Amino acid sequence: MKVVCFDLEGVLVPEFWEEFSKATGIPELMLTTRDEPDYDKLMKMRIRVLKEHGFTMKEISEVVSKMNALPGAREFVDWVKTVAQPCILTGSYYEYITPLVAKLGYPFMFANSLEIDSKGNIVGYKLRENDGKVEQIKRFKEAGYEVIAVGDSFNDVKMLKEADTGILFKACAALKRQEKQLRKAENYSELKKILEELLD
Amino acid sequence: MKVVCFDLEGVLVPEFWEEFSKATGIPELMLTTRDEPDYDKLMKMRIRVLKEHGFTMKEISEVVSKMNALPGAREFVDWVKTVAQPCILTGSYYEYITPLVAKLGYPFMFANSLEIDSKGNIVGYKLRENDGKVEQIKRFKEAGYEVIAVGDSFNDVKMLKEADTGILFKACAALKRQEKQLRKAENYSELKKILEELLD
Repeated sequence: MKVVCFDLEGVLVPEFWEEFSKATGIPELMLTTRDEPDYDKLMKMRIRVLKEHGFTMKEISEVVSKMNALPGAREFVDWVKTVAQPCILTGSYYEYITPLVAKLGYPFMFANSLEIDSKGNIVGYKLRENDGKVEQIKRFKEAGYEVIAVGDSFNDVKMLKEADTGILFKACAALKRQEKQLRKAENYSELKKILEELLD
Repeated sequence: MKVVCFDLEGVLVPEFWEEFSKATGIPELMLTTRDEPDYDKLMKMRIRVLKEHGFTMKEISEVVSKMNALPGAREFVDWVKTVAQPCILTGSYYEYITPLVAKLGYPFMFANSLEIDSKGNIVGYKLRENDGKVEQIKRFKEAGYEVIAVGDSFNDVKMLKEADTGILFKACAALKRQEKQLRKAENYSELKKILEELLD
């Protein structure tokens, strides 16, 4: 039995803040670590902007409930469940991402937690540990599993290399050039083919 | 976010070998570690008896596909997914138990693996690690989670005590007397009430 670890955004659901920014019409929420490399500054800006626009967890959940997983993602995860143990490794936060993960049938997810006050305002965030994706893959290996990992971006490379097999999914050209030795899939049907081969 | 770890047999599905023995009419398969405390001897006997009766993985899967989860278990697991991260910790084996776990909607499961030959005969078994349930709870804690564990029998006590909160589910009177300090639930509705309180 093998464990298949999926990065979430870009692999099974859209980039969260991009979607959220579009849905709410708040342009600042479009910014990512590409625009603000200091993650703490970025998260604090998001928290401040959400507060300024009157978004408590209630309003956030209403927006996220209307978002959708990537087309075919639910069916793909449902298939993986029949042949391996799938789980999600994400740097995202349970409190806002869960209504979206519900659309995938709630696969097991390792994520982080927000700090919410009694009025439902986000007041902070808490990372469970540094390098959470990599650490979790190490733990699965320690538990006797062979691990396959799937990710789409530069910040997934460390996790993909820690796994027994790492697969780049719909990665940009620059990343594919950089990581020649990783397996590559451009859609769920190609990813399924690679997994079928690895799980055989 | 909390992780809720469930022992499988007796908590979400019936005792496997008991059900399998009834379904196939092979009385020897009714034996458990209560009758043969040497686990290796017990498993080797099961493998031998299955072979004698012509049960390859194909025939075994057909029998298991007709078994059912405990009444209400699927709905209960579906509810837990909406409020926490549920997973199964079991000493059972993926190869034969999966058609039964399918009836629970394939929650993430830490189990063991059988060795199967090219003809589909079971030829051995492989434990991922000693004390797998306890080790996995330690790993969840190490990853920054609070862990709730649910089990029904004496061999679950170590795991229940390793968790932040251990809950005995439909345990026998002797076990309840022995483990006075553990929380106790007799059905899913009582278990739900305890979880709601702990997850609040």
